[in-house]
Amino acid sequence: MKENVLIVGLGMMGGSFAQSLTSLNYHVYGYDISLETIEYAYNHHFILNKTLDDSLISQSDLIIICLYPNLVIPWVKEHLHLFKKDVIICDITGVKHQIVLEIQSLLHDKMELVSIHPMCGKETSGVQYSLPNLFTGANLIIIKTENNTEKNINYIKDLGEKLAFAHIEILSIEEHDKTISFLSQLPHVIAVALMDQRNNDHLIRYTGDSYRDLTRIAKINEKLWSELFIDNKENLVHDIDEFIAMMEELKHNIQDENKDELENLLIKSRKRRINFDK
Amino acid sequence: MKENVLIVGLGMMGGSFAQSLTSLNYHVYGYDISLETIEYAYNHHFILNKTLDDSLISQSDLIIICLYPNLVIPWVKEHLHLFKKDVIICDITGVKHQIVLEIQSLLHDKMELVSIHPMCGKETSGVQYSLPNLFTGANLIIIKTENNTEKNINYIKDLGEKLAFAHIEILSIEEHDKTISFLSQLPHVIAVALMDQRNNDHLIRYTGDSYRDLTRIAKINEKLWSELFIDNKENLVHDIDEFIAMMEELKHNIQDENKDELENLLIKSRKRRINFDK
Repeated sequence: MKENVLIVGLGMMGGSFAQSLTSLNYHVYGYDISLETIEYAYNHHFILNKTLDDSLISQSDLIIICLYPNLVIPWVKEHLHLFKKDVIICDITGVKHQIVLEIQSLLHDKMELVSIHPMCGKETSGVQYSLPNLFTGANLIIIKTENNTEKNINYIKDLGEKLAFAHIEILSIEEHDKTISFLSQLPHVIAVALMDQRNNDHLIRYTGDSYRDLTRIAKINEKLWSELFIDNKENLVHDIDEFIAMMEELKHNIQDENKDELENLLIKSRKRRINFDK
Repeated sequence: MKENVLIVGLGMMGGSFAQSLTSLNYHVYGYDISLETIEYAYNHHFILNKTLDDSLISQSDLIIICLYPNLVIPWVKEHLHLFKKDVIICDITGVKHQIVLEIQSLLHDKMELVSIHPMCGKETSGVQYSLPNLFTGANLIIIKTENNTEKNINYIKDLGEKLAFAHIEILSIEEHDKTISFLSQLPHVIAVALMDQRNNDHLIRYTGDSYRDLTRIAKINEKLWSELFIDNKENLVHDIDEFIAMMEELKHNIQDENKDELENLLIKSRKRRINFDK
Protein backbone atom coordinates (compact mmCIF):
# COMPACT_ATOMS: atom_id res chain seq x y z
CA MET A 1 0.00 0.00 0.00
CA LYS A 2 1.22 3.47 -0.95
CA GLU A 3 0.34 6.07 1.66
CA ASN A 4 -0.33 9.69 0.79
CA VAL A 5 1.51 12.07 3.09
CA LEU A 6 1.02 15.82 3.10
CA ILE A 7 3.69 18.06 4.60
CA VAL A 8 2.24 21.41 5.65
CA GLY A 9 4.92 24.11 5.86
CA LEU A 10 7.99 23.26 3.79
CA GLY A 11 10.69 24.86 5.91
CA MET A 12 13.88 23.21 7.10
CA MET A 13 11.97 20.55 9.09
CA GLY A 14 9.08 20.10 6.65
CA GLY A 15 11.44 19.86 3.70
CA SER A 16 13.48 17.24 5.56
CA PHE A 17 10.34 15.17 6.20
CA ALA A 18 9.46 15.47 2.51
CA GLN A 19 12.90 14.30 1.40
CA SER A 20 13.11 11.41 3.86
CA LEU A 21 9.59 10.12 3.19
CA THR A 22 10.03 10.40 -0.58
CA SER A 23 13.15 8.26 -0.34
CA LEU A 24 11.08 5.72 1.66
CA ASN A 25 8.64 5.54 -1.29
CA TYR A 26 5.71 7.32 0.33
CA HIS A 27 3.62 9.53 -1.94
CA VAL A 28 4.63 12.91 -0.58
CA TYR A 29 2.82 16.19 -1.27
CA GLY A 30 3.60 19.65 0.01
CA TYR A 31 1.53 22.59 1.21
CA ASP A 32 3.06 26.01 1.74
CA ILE A 33 1.97 29.63 1.66
CA SER A 34 4.83 30.33 -0.76
CA LEU A 35 4.39 28.99 -4.29
CA GLU A 36 8.09 29.55 -4.81
CA THR A 37 8.78 27.05 -2.02
CA ILE A 38 6.38 24.52 -3.57
CA GLU A 39 8.18 24.97 -6.89
CA TYR A 40 11.60 24.54 -5.27
CA ALA A 41 10.49 21.36 -3.50
CA TYR A 42 8.89 19.99 -6.68
CA ASN A 43 11.94 20.77 -8.81
CA HIS A 44 14.16 19.03 -6.27
CA HIS A 45 11.88 15.96 -6.25
CA PHE A 46 10.95 16.36 -2.58
CA ILE A 47 7.20 16.42 -3.41
CA LEU A 48 4.88 15.28 -6.22
CA ASN A 49 2.70 18.40 -6.65
CA LYS A 50 3.66 21.68 -8.25
CA THR A 51 0.45 23.51 -7.41
CA LEU A 52 -1.95 23.65 -4.46
CA ASP A 53 -5.55 22.48 -4.27
CA ASP A 54 -7.95 21.06 -1.68
CA SER A 55 -7.68 17.51 -3.01
CA LEU A 56 -4.14 17.37 -1.59
CA ILE A 57 -5.71 17.50 1.86
CA SER A 58 -8.71 15.26 1.24
CA GLN A 59 -6.58 12.43 -0.20
CA SER A 60 -4.02 12.44 2.66
CA ASP A 61 -3.64 9.49 5.04
CA LEU A 62 -1.07 11.37 7.10
CA ILE A 63 -0.61 15.12 7.47
CA ILE A 64 2.58 16.40 9.13
CA ILE A 65 2.19 20.04 10.14
CA CYS A 66 5.51 21.89 10.30
CA LEU A 67 4.21 25.45 10.68
CA TYR A 68 5.15 28.09 13.26
CA PRO A 69 3.44 27.21 16.57
CA ASN A 70 0.78 29.94 16.44
CA LEU A 71 -0.31 28.91 12.92
CA VAL A 72 -1.02 25.26 13.68
CA ILE A 73 -4.49 25.51 15.29
CA PRO A 74 -5.78 28.08 12.74
CA TRP A 75 -4.62 25.83 9.87
CA VAL A 76 -6.38 22.79 11.36
CA LYS A 77 -9.61 24.76 11.93
CA GLU A 78 -9.58 26.13 8.39
CA HIS A 79 -9.03 22.77 6.68
CA LEU A 80 -10.74 20.32 9.03
CA HIS A 81 -13.76 19.89 6.70
CA LEU A 82 -11.40 18.48 4.06
CA PHE A 83 -9.73 15.83 6.27
CA LYS A 84 -10.16 12.11 5.60
CA LYS A 85 -12.28 10.50 8.32
CA ASP A 86 -9.33 8.44 9.58
CA VAL A 87 -6.49 10.86 8.86
CA ILE A 88 -3.51 10.89 11.23
CA ILE A 89 -2.18 14.38 11.95
CA CYS A 90 1.25 15.13 13.40
CA ASP A 91 2.47 18.50 14.61
CA ILE A 92 6.11 19.14 15.47
CA THR A 93 5.77 22.24 17.66
CA GLY A 94 8.28 22.71 20.45
CA VAL A 95 5.78 23.30 23.28
CA LYS A 96 2.76 21.05 23.55
CA HIS A 97 0.35 22.17 26.28
CA GLN A 98 -1.38 24.90 24.23
CA ILE A 99 -1.76 22.82 21.11
CA VAL A 100 -2.27 19.11 21.56
CA LEU A 101 -5.49 18.85 23.59
CA GLU A 102 -7.15 21.67 21.67
CA ILE A 103 -6.51 20.06 18.29
CA GLN A 104 -7.57 16.66 19.60
CA SER A 105 -10.86 18.19 20.77
CA LEU A 106 -11.49 19.62 17.28
CA LEU A 107 -11.08 16.28 15.48
CA HIS A 108 -14.01 13.90 14.93
CA ASP A 109 -14.71 10.43 13.50
CA LYS A 110 -11.47 8.44 13.58
CA MET A 111 -9.20 11.40 12.93
CA GLU A 112 -6.28 11.46 15.38
CA LEU A 113 -3.49 13.85 16.31
CA VAL A 114 -0.25 12.12 17.32
CA SER A 115 1.95 15.00 18.37
CA ILE A 116 5.72 14.55 17.91
CA HIS A 117 8.94 16.42 18.59
CA PRO A 118 11.99 15.49 16.50
CA MET A 119 15.01 16.59 18.58
CA CYS A 120 17.10 17.79 15.70
CA GLY A 121 16.43 21.49 15.19
CA LYS A 122 19.03 23.50 13.34
CA GLU A 123 19.85 27.19 13.46
CA THR A 124 18.96 27.46 9.76
CA SER A 125 15.49 27.93 8.30
CA GLY A 126 13.93 27.48 4.88
CA VAL A 127 13.41 24.58 2.47
CA GLN A 128 16.86 25.07 0.93
CA TYR A 129 18.40 24.01 4.27
CA SER A 130 16.36 20.83 4.55
CA LEU A 131 18.32 17.58 4.60
CA PRO A 132 17.66 14.03 3.39
CA ASN A 133 19.13 12.53 6.58
CA LEU A 134 18.19 15.07 9.27
CA PHE A 135 16.57 12.44 11.47
CA THR A 136 19.26 9.77 11.25
CA GLY A 137 20.51 9.08 14.76
CA ALA A 138 18.41 11.83 16.40
CA ASN A 139 15.94 11.42 19.26
CA LEU A 140 12.17 11.52 18.70
CA ILE A 141 9.58 12.28 21.37
CA ILE A 142 5.99 11.11 20.80
CA ILE A 143 3.28 12.69 22.97
CA LYS A 144 0.64 10.32 24.26
CA THR A 145 -2.63 11.61 25.71
CA GLU A 146 -5.88 9.95 26.75
CA ASN A 147 -7.18 10.70 23.25
CA ASN A 148 -4.59 8.57 21.49
CA THR A 149 -5.03 4.97 20.33
CA GLU A 150 -2.30 2.34 20.66
CA LYS A 151 -2.70 1.63 16.96
CA ASN A 152 -1.82 5.14 15.83
CA ILE A 153 0.92 5.66 18.42
CA ASN A 154 2.50 2.46 17.06
CA TYR A 155 2.03 3.65 13.49
CA ILE A 156 4.01 6.83 14.25
CA LYS A 157 6.60 4.86 16.20
CA ASP A 158 7.12 2.59 13.19
CA LEU A 159 7.39 5.65 10.97
CA GLY A 160 10.04 7.09 13.32
CA GLU A 161 12.00 3.83 13.05
CA LYS A 162 11.80 3.94 9.24
CA LEU A 163 13.09 7.52 9.40
CA ALA A 164 16.12 6.17 11.31
CA PHE A 165 15.60 8.00 14.59
CA ALA A 166 17.97 6.50 17.16
CA HIS A 167 15.69 6.66 20.20
CA ILE A 168 11.95 7.05 20.29
CA GLU A 169 10.40 7.94 23.63
CA ILE A 170 6.78 8.39 24.63
CA LEU A 171 6.00 11.20 27.07
CA SER A 172 2.95 12.99 28.43
CA ILE A 173 2.38 16.64 27.50
CA GLU A 174 3.62 17.79 30.93
CA GLU A 175 6.73 15.59 30.84
CA HIS A 176 7.53 16.81 27.34
CA ASP A 177 7.20 20.51 28.15
CA LYS A 178 9.32 20.19 31.29
CA THR A 179 11.99 18.17 29.49
CA ILE A 180 12.15 20.52 26.54
CA SER A 181 12.39 23.58 28.74
CA PHE A 182 15.56 22.22 30.31
CA LEU A 183 17.19 20.48 27.33
CA SER A 184 16.39 22.95 24.58
CA GLN A 185 14.93 26.28 25.67
CA LEU A 186 17.24 26.95 28.63
CA PRO A 187 20.35 26.31 26.47
CA HIS A 188 18.98 28.76 23.89
CA VAL A 189 18.36 31.46 26.50
CA ILE A 190 21.91 30.92 27.83
CA ALA A 191 23.44 31.18 24.34
CA VAL A 192 21.54 34.41 23.66
CA ALA A 193 22.54 35.91 27.03
CA LEU A 194 26.21 35.09 26.43
CA MET A 195 26.07 36.71 22.99
CA ASP A 196 24.10 39.77 24.14
CA GLN A 197 25.85 40.58 27.41
CA ARG A 198 28.51 42.75 25.79
CA ASN A 199 29.75 44.04 22.48
CA ASN A 200 32.05 41.29 21.29
CA ASP A 201 32.95 42.04 17.64
CA HIS A 202 36.64 42.47 18.38
CA LEU A 203 36.84 39.16 20.25
CA ILE A 204 36.59 37.05 17.10
CA ARG A 205 40.37 37.30 16.74
CA TYR A 206 40.99 35.70 20.12
CA THR A 207 38.33 33.10 20.54
CA GLY A 208 38.75 29.35 20.92
CA ASP A 209 36.02 26.79 20.44
CA SER A 210 34.37 27.10 23.87
CA TYR A 211 32.68 30.40 23.15
CA ARG A 212 31.80 29.25 19.63
CA ASP A 213 30.22 26.02 20.92
CA LEU A 214 28.18 27.74 23.59
CA THR A 215 26.80 30.34 21.20
CA ARG A 216 26.17 28.30 18.03
CA ILE A 217 22.45 28.23 18.81
CA ALA A 218 22.46 31.99 19.47
CA LYS A 219 22.03 32.32 15.68
CA ILE A 220 18.38 32.02 16.45
CA ASN A 221 15.07 32.52 14.59
CA GLU A 222 13.59 35.30 16.75
CA LYS A 223 9.95 34.79 15.73
CA LEU A 224 9.93 31.06 16.42
CA TRP A 225 11.91 31.13 19.64
CA SER A 226 10.28 34.08 21.34
CA GLU A 227 6.99 32.22 20.78
CA LEU A 228 8.42 29.00 22.21
CA PHE A 229 9.93 30.76 25.25
CA ILE A 230 6.67 32.51 26.07
CA ASP A 231 4.51 29.42 25.39
CA ASN A 232 6.55 27.44 27.92
CA LYS A 233 7.25 30.27 30.34
CA GLU A 234 6.25 28.51 33.54
CA ASN A 235 8.74 25.70 33.09
CA LEU A 236 11.38 27.93 31.54
CA VAL A 237 11.36 30.63 34.23
CA HIS A 238 11.73 27.88 36.85
CA ASP A 239 14.70 26.39 34.98
CA ILE A 240 16.36 29.79 34.49
CA ASP A 241 16.07 30.46 38.23
CA GLU A 242 17.55 27.05 39.07
CA PHE A 243 20.41 27.67 36.62
CA ILE A 244 21.14 31.13 38.02
CA ALA A 245 21.24 29.67 41.55
CA MET A 246 23.86 27.15 40.37
CA MET A 247 25.88 29.95 38.72
CA GLU A 248 25.76 31.86 42.03
CA GLU A 249 26.97 28.79 43.93
CA LEU A 250 29.93 28.40 41.56
CA LYS A 251 30.64 32.12 41.76
CA HIS A 252 30.75 32.13 45.56
CA ASN A 253 33.12 29.18 45.60
CA ILE A 254 35.41 31.01 43.17
CA GLN A 255 35.19 34.26 45.12
CA ASP A 256 35.92 32.56 48.44
CA GLU A 257 38.59 30.31 46.90
CA ASN A 258 36.89 27.14 48.15
CA LYS A 259 39.04 24.96 45.98
CA ASP A 260 37.84 21.63 47.35
CA GLU A 261 34.17 22.42 46.89
CA LEU A 262 34.86 23.86 43.43
CA GLU A 263 36.70 20.70 42.44
CA ASN A 264 33.78 18.60 43.67
CA LEU A 265 31.35 20.57 41.49
CA LEU A 266 33.66 20.14 38.50
CA ILE A 267 34.04 16.40 39.12
CA LYS A 268 30.25 16.03 39.28
CA SER A 269 29.93 17.93 36.03
CA ARG A 270 32.56 15.82 34.26
CA LYS A 271 31.09 12.51 35.41
CA ARG A 272 27.59 13.48 34.32
CA ARG A 273 28.76 14.81 30.97
CA ILE A 274 30.56 11.60 30.03
CA ASN A 275 27.14 9.90 29.84
CA PHE A 276 26.05 12.36 27.17
CA ASP A 277 28.84 11.54 24.72
CA LYS A 278 27.31 10.25 21.52
CA MET B 1 70.50 26.13 11.98
CA LYS B 2 68.77 23.43 14.01
CA GLU B 3 67.21 24.76 17.18
CA ASN B 4 66.89 22.69 20.34
CA VAL B 5 63.44 22.91 21.87
CA LEU B 6 62.52 21.45 25.24
CA ILE B 7 58.86 20.77 26.05
CA VAL B 8 58.28 20.68 29.80
CA GLY B 9 55.13 18.73 30.67
CA LEU B 10 54.09 16.32 27.94
CA GLY B 11 50.33 16.46 28.32
CA MET B 12 47.79 17.06 25.58
CA MET B 13 49.20 20.53 24.81
CA GLY B 14 52.87 19.71 25.40
CA GLY B 15 52.61 16.56 23.31
CA SER B 16 51.00 18.53 20.50
CA PHE B 17 53.86 21.06 20.56
CA ALA B 18 56.34 18.18 20.44
CA GLN B 19 54.62 16.57 17.45
CA SER B 20 54.21 19.83 15.50
CA LEU B 21 57.76 21.05 16.11
CA THR B 22 59.25 17.66 15.28
CA SER B 23 57.44 17.71 11.94
CA LEU B 24 58.92 21.20 11.34
CA ASN B 25 62.43 19.68 11.82
CA TYR B 26 63.26 21.27 15.18
CA HIS B 27 65.27 19.14 17.58
CA VAL B 28 62.59 18.42 20.15
CA TYR B 29 63.20 17.04 23.63
CA GLY B 30 60.74 16.31 26.38
CA TYR B 31 60.70 16.73 30.15
CA ASP B 32 58.03 15.14 32.31
CA ILE B 33 57.66 13.87 35.85
CA SER B 34 56.41 10.55 34.42
CA LEU B 35 59.04 8.37 32.75
CA GLU B 36 56.23 6.40 31.17
CA THR B 37 55.12 9.56 29.37
CA ILE B 38 58.68 10.23 28.16
CA GLU B 39 58.84 6.68 26.89
CA TYR B 40 55.49 7.00 25.12
CA ALA B 41 56.55 10.26 23.44
CA TYR B 42 59.93 8.77 22.45
CA ASN B 43 58.36 5.61 21.04
CA HIS B 44 55.91 7.71 19.01
CA HIS B 45 58.78 9.86 17.65
CA PHE B 46 57.48 13.04 19.29
CA ILE B 47 60.83 13.63 21.10
CA LEU B 48 64.48 12.62 20.74
CA ASN B 49 65.29 11.65 24.34
CA LYS B 50 64.22 8.56 26.19
CA THR B 51 65.64 9.55 29.55
CA LEU B 52 65.96 12.76 31.57
CA ASP B 53 69.07 14.70 32.51
CA ASP B 54 70.12 18.28 33.14
CA SER B 55 71.84 18.66 29.78
CA LEU B 56 68.40 18.67 28.14
CA ILE B 57 67.82 22.01 29.82
CA SER B 58 71.27 23.52 29.38
CA GLN B 59 71.33 22.84 25.62
CA SER B 60 67.86 24.31 24.95
CA ASP B 61 67.37 27.44 22.84
CA LEU B 62 63.65 27.44 23.51
CA ILE B 63 61.77 25.94 26.48
CA ILE B 64 57.99 25.64 26.25
CA ILE B 65 56.49 25.03 29.68
CA CYS B 66 53.16 23.19 29.53
CA LEU B 67 52.74 22.40 33.24
CA TYR B 68 49.74 23.04 35.49
CA PRO B 69 49.69 26.77 36.39
CA ASN B 70 50.88 26.38 40.00
CA LEU B 71 53.90 24.30 38.93
CA VAL B 72 55.34 26.79 36.44
CA ILE B 73 57.13 29.21 38.80
CA PRO B 74 58.55 26.41 41.02
CA TRP B 75 59.92 24.63 37.92
CA VAL B 76 61.60 27.80 36.66
CA LYS B 77 63.14 28.52 40.07
CA GLU B 78 64.46 24.99 40.42
CA HIS B 79 66.08 24.85 36.98
CA LEU B 80 67.08 28.47 36.37
CA HIS B 81 70.77 27.75 37.05
CA LEU B 82 70.80 25.38 34.07
CA PHE B 83 69.28 27.80 31.51
CA LYS B 84 71.26 29.03 28.51
CA LYS B 85 72.08 32.72 28.89
CA ASP B 86 69.85 33.65 25.93
CA VAL B 87 67.15 31.02 26.29
CA ILE B 88 63.60 31.90 25.31
CA ILE B 89 60.96 30.53 27.66
CA CYS B 90 57.26 30.20 26.82
CA ASP B 91 54.52 29.32 29.24
CA ILE B 92 51.00 28.48 28.09
CA THR B 93 49.06 29.05 31.32
CA GLY B 94 45.50 30.29 30.99
CA VAL B 95 45.78 33.23 33.42
CA LYS B 96 48.80 35.50 33.18
CA HIS B 97 48.90 38.08 35.96
CA GLN B 98 50.34 35.81 38.66
CA ILE B 99 52.97 34.27 36.46
CA VAL B 100 54.43 36.45 33.74
CA LEU B 101 56.00 39.36 35.63
CA GLU B 102 57.30 37.11 38.41
CA ILE B 103 59.09 34.80 35.99
CA GLN B 104 60.44 37.74 34.02
CA SER B 105 61.89 39.17 37.26
CA LEU B 106 63.67 35.87 37.98
CA LEU B 107 65.45 35.72 34.63
CA HIS B 108 68.84 37.30 34.03
CA ASP B 109 71.35 37.89 31.23
CA LYS B 110 69.48 37.70 27.89
CA MET B 111 67.01 35.09 29.05
CA GLU B 112 63.45 36.07 28.13
CA LEU B 113 59.95 34.83 28.86
CA VAL B 114 57.49 35.30 25.98
CA SER B 115 54.21 34.15 27.45
CA ILE B 116 51.67 32.66 25.03
CA HIS B 117 48.14 31.27 25.06
CA PRO B 118 47.15 28.88 22.25
CA MET B 119 43.33 29.08 22.05
CA CYS B 120 42.74 25.43 21.34
CA GLY B 121 42.25 23.62 24.61
CA LYS B 122 40.45 20.31 24.55
CA GLU B 123 38.47 18.49 27.22
CA THR B 124 40.96 15.62 27.06
CA SER B 125 44.26 15.42 28.91
CA GLY B 126 47.40 13.32 28.59
CA VAL B 127 50.06 12.78 25.92
CA GLN B 128 47.98 10.08 24.21
CA TYR B 129 45.44 12.79 23.28
CA SER B 130 48.02 15.13 21.76
CA LEU B 131 47.58 15.91 18.08
CA PRO B 132 49.97 16.70 15.22
CA ASN B 133 47.69 19.49 13.92
CA LEU B 134 46.16 20.92 17.10
CA PHE B 135 47.23 24.47 16.24
CA THR B 136 46.16 24.53 12.60
CA GLY B 137 43.62 27.31 12.16
CA ALA B 138 43.47 28.18 15.88
CA ASN B 139 44.07 31.59 17.46
CA LEU B 140 47.27 32.40 19.36
CA ILE B 141 47.66 35.17 21.91
CA ILE B 142 51.17 36.46 22.68
CA ILE B 143 51.62 38.50 25.88
CA LYS B 144 53.85 41.55 25.56
CA THR B 145 55.21 43.29 28.65
CA GLU B 146 57.81 46.03 29.18
CA ASN B 147 60.36 43.25 29.71
CA ASN B 148 60.00 41.84 26.21
CA THR B 149 62.18 42.60 23.21
CA GLU B 150 60.81 43.07 19.69
CA LYS B 151 63.27 40.46 18.50
CA ASN B 152 61.94 37.68 20.68
CA ILE B 153 58.28 38.65 20.28
CA ASN B 154 58.85 38.38 16.52
CA TYR B 155 60.65 35.06 16.93
CA ILE B 156 57.59 33.60 18.71
CA LYS B 157 55.25 35.19 16.18
CA ASP B 158 57.20 33.51 13.36
CA LEU B 159 57.05 30.23 15.25
CA GLY B 160 53.27 30.64 15.60
CA GLU B 161 53.01 31.14 11.84
CA LYS B 162 55.08 28.04 11.19
CA LEU B 163 52.75 26.14 13.51
CA ALA B 164 49.86 27.25 11.24
CA PHE B 165 47.93 29.35 13.76
CA ALA B 166 45.27 31.32 11.86
CA HIS B 167 45.44 34.56 13.86
CA ILE B 168 48.21 35.75 16.13
CA GLU B 169 47.37 38.67 18.40
CA ILE B 170 49.53 40.56 20.88
CA LEU B 171 47.90 41.61 24.14
CA SER B 172 48.97 43.01 27.50
CA ILE B 173 48.60 40.84 30.61
CA GLU B 174 45.47 42.74 31.66
CA GLU B 175 43.86 42.56 28.22
CA HIS B 176 44.60 38.84 28.04
CA ASP B 177 43.16 38.01 31.45
CA LYS B 178 39.98 40.01 30.80
CA THR B 179 39.54 38.46 27.34
CA ILE B 180 40.10 34.94 28.54
CA SER B 181 37.72 35.34 31.45
CA PHE B 182 34.90 36.13 29.04
CA LEU B 183 35.78 33.86 26.10
CA SER B 184 36.94 30.77 27.94
CA GLN B 185 36.36 30.73 31.69
CA LEU B 186 32.81 32.08 31.72
CA PRO B 187 31.69 29.48 29.11
CA HIS B 188 33.25 26.76 31.26
CA VAL B 189 31.44 27.95 34.40
CA ILE B 190 28.18 28.04 32.42
CA ALA B 191 28.67 24.52 31.08
CA VAL B 192 29.38 23.20 34.58
CA ALA B 193 26.34 24.98 36.05
CA LEU B 194 24.07 23.56 33.35
CA MET B 195 25.39 20.05 34.01
CA ASP B 196 25.27 20.36 37.81
CA GLN B 197 21.93 22.09 38.30
CA ARG B 198 19.92 18.86 38.35
CA ASN B 199 20.21 15.13 38.06
CA ASN B 200 20.00 14.54 34.33
CA ASP B 201 20.92 10.88 33.68
CA HIS B 202 17.48 10.01 32.31
CA LEU B 203 17.53 12.95 29.88
CA ILE B 204 20.07 11.35 27.55
CA ARG B 205 17.21 9.62 25.74
CA TYR B 206 15.54 12.91 24.84
CA THR B 207 18.33 15.33 24.16
CA GLY B 208 19.11 17.12 20.92
CA ASP B 209 22.38 18.82 20.08
CA SER B 210 21.78 22.09 21.95
CA TYR B 211 22.33 20.64 25.40
CA ARG B 212 25.23 18.53 24.13
CA ASP B 213 26.94 21.57 22.55
CA LEU B 214 26.54 23.73 25.61
CA THR B 215 27.95 21.10 27.94
CA ARG B 216 30.79 19.58 25.88
CA ILE B 217 33.32 21.57 27.92
CA ALA B 218 31.68 20.46 31.17
CA LYS B 219 33.83 17.32 30.83
CA ILE B 220 36.41 19.37 32.63
CA ASN B 221 39.75 18.76 34.32
CA GLU B 222 38.85 19.84 37.86
CA LYS B 223 42.40 20.49 39.09
CA LEU B 224 43.36 22.72 36.18
CA TRP B 225 40.14 24.66 35.91
CA SER B 226 39.52 25.34 39.59
CA GLU B 227 43.03 26.83 39.62
CA LEU B 228 42.29 28.93 36.54
CA PHE B 229 38.93 30.16 37.88
CA ILE B 230 40.44 31.20 41.20
CA ASP B 231 43.56 32.74 39.60
CA ASN B 232 41.37 35.00 37.47
CA LYS B 233 38.60 35.53 39.98
CA GLU B 234 38.35 39.30 39.76
CA ASN B 235 37.60 39.29 36.04
CA LEU B 236 35.55 36.11 36.20
CA VAL B 237 33.24 37.15 39.02
CA HIS B 238 32.56 40.40 37.14
CA ASP B 239 31.72 38.48 33.97
CA ILE B 240 29.49 35.99 35.81
CA ASP B 241 27.56 38.91 37.34
CA GLU B 242 27.15 40.57 33.94
CA PHE B 243 25.96 37.28 32.44
CA ILE B 244 23.46 36.66 35.24
CA ALA B 245 22.08 40.19 34.75
CA MET B 246 21.52 39.41 31.07
CA MET B 247 19.80 36.11 31.97
CA GLU B 248 17.53 38.05 34.35
CA GLU B 249 16.67 40.55 31.60
CA LEU B 250 15.71 37.73 29.24
CA LYS B 251 13.75 36.01 32.00
CA HIS B 252 11.72 39.12 32.79
CA ASN B 253 10.85 39.61 29.14
CA ILE B 254 9.67 35.99 28.94
CA GLN B 255 7.72 36.26 32.18
CA ASP B 256 6.02 39.51 31.13
CA GLU B 257 5.51 38.26 27.55
CA ASN B 258 7.29 41.30 26.07
CA LYS B 259 7.49 39.69 22.67
CA ASP B 260 8.90 42.72 20.83
CA GLU B 261 11.73 43.28 23.28
CA LEU B 262 12.47 39.54 23.36
CA GLU B 263 12.63 39.45 19.56
CA ASN B 264 15.03 42.42 19.60
CA LEU B 265 17.34 40.61 22.00
CA LEU B 266 17.23 37.50 19.81
CA ILE B 267 17.92 39.52 16.65
CA LYS B 268 20.94 41.15 18.32
CA SER B 269 22.20 37.74 19.34
CA ARG B 270 21.79 36.27 15.85
CA LYS B 271 23.50 39.20 14.13
CA ARG B 272 26.47 39.09 16.49
CA ARG B 273 26.82 35.32 16.26
CA ILE B 274 27.02 35.33 12.45
CA ASN B 275 30.39 37.10 12.75
CA PHE B 276 31.76 34.19 14.76
CA ASP B 277 31.12 31.54 12.13
CA LYS B 278 34.41 29.99 11.12
